[in-house]
Amino acid sequence: MSIKVIAFDADDTLWVNEPYFRRTEEEFYKLLNEFLQQHALERELLKTEIANLKLYGYGVKGFILSMIETALTVTNNTIPAEIVGQIINLGKGLLDEPIELLDGVEEVLSELKDRYRLVVATKGDLLDQERKLKKSGLSHYFHHIEIMSEKDDANYLKLVKHLDIQPDELLMIGNSLKSDIMPVLNIGGSAIHVPYHITWAHEQIEDTIDNEKFESIASIREILEMV
Amino acid sequence: MSIKVIAFDADDTLWVNEPYFRRTEEEFYKLLNEFLQQHALERELLKTEIANLKLYGYGVKGFILSMIETALTVTNNTIPAEIVGQIINLGKGLLDEPIELLDGVEEVLSELKDRYRLVVATKGDLLDQERKLKKSGLSHYFHHIEIMSEKDDANYLKLVKHLDIQPDELLMIGNSLKSDIMPVLNIGGSAIHVPYHITWAHEQIEDTIDNEKFESIASIREILEMV
Repeated sequence: MSIKVIAFDADDTLWVNEPYFRRTEEEFYKLLNEFLQQHALERELLKTEIANLKLYGYGVKGFILSMIETALTVTNNTIPAEIVGQIINLGKGLLDEPIELLDGVEEVLSELKDRYRLVVATKGDLLDQERKLKKSGLSHYFHHIEIMSEKDDANYLKLVKHLDIQPDELLMIGNSLKSDIMPVLNIGGSAIHVPYHITWAHEQIEDTIDNEKFESIASIREILEMV
Repeated sequence: MSIKVIAFDADDTLWVNEPYFRRTEEEFYKLLNEFLQQHALERELLKTEIANLKLYGYGVKGFILSMIETALTVTNNTIPAEIVGQIINLGKGLLDEPIELLDGVEEVLSELKDRYRLVVATKGDLLDQERKLKKSGLSHYFHHIEIMSEKDDANYLKLVKHLDIQPDELLMIGNSLKSDIMPVLNIGGSAIHVPYHITWAHEQIEDTIDNEKFESIASIREILEMV
């Protein structure tokens, strides 16, 4: 491998994220539990989120808007305005969560930072991700943060162009096979999968991957033996 | 001037934007006119938007959330859920507006594109700005699009670092003295102000600028005589 840049996904790769979303969803279901059962709410929320992705993209603000829209739909516009306010506050709380680094992250970054150019490559809202990076205390390890509107082949090609490297000089590390691994392998880069114990339904895929530029590891620490 | 990169603001510099926001606001005021007079609504909306900027950043999604929050506040949580749904739809409409290029833009870009590296430097939501750039048909003139969470000195310094140039090799062109001009001059870059006939209250400043690296022009076409 002649890797020049190592790109790290952020949410659930560097720090805890999905559990905060899950907790917010739980609280959202509680707010609406007199209107619909949790199971049906879950389905409706996911449906609304996916329908809105094209317009809103990823990130907390779109998530708040989708929760509000779901609440309107499932209650047939009978939801009290007060609950809408509580949903907004749930969302604001989510934007203000503390950052909890995942095990081994700091050790790995500190080991790699003088040997490679490190970047963060993530979806979501720019301001929110910048804030999280700042709160994480990890900023100084990274050359910069790249926000991608969608993590697909075309945007990874843009990324390598932007980084001024060849696709095979990129190593991407992340928890989502769909967003962090498959498209990077597709364009000829290397990818290491570090699964996180929970994954958003929309990020789940069934494929098995057979590619010499792919590895799956249980802990981010194992990267140090590989590069 | 030894300009290497010319960065263009997008909204109200390359294409019409603020009038769409204004029209959306008008429709928002109409939805709420039985609760409060327009003047008081305007004040409340702006107050809410500014209070939320730190958390939401710029862009349409934060604007929708601030409209909803304003509606809850001014009606003391008595607003019918249906109107919340209409506010969401106003916001979705805003994300789906057509792109109307400002006069002279295409001519200027086509003239400059082989002589300078051209980039778009804008605030707002990444996906939304990418979509607008694509719809504008201007993508091929630009090396890439930079989304900045805030257009301040620190972020312009990051931008020049990212572009791998010195501050005095940057020329920024935009309609906002506060966001496009002052911070660029502060870091030692050049800036050309092309005023647009309406400006969001939060972007208005009173300063007069006396700096040899600053020009104000009435039409973007005049740039061609200057570089």
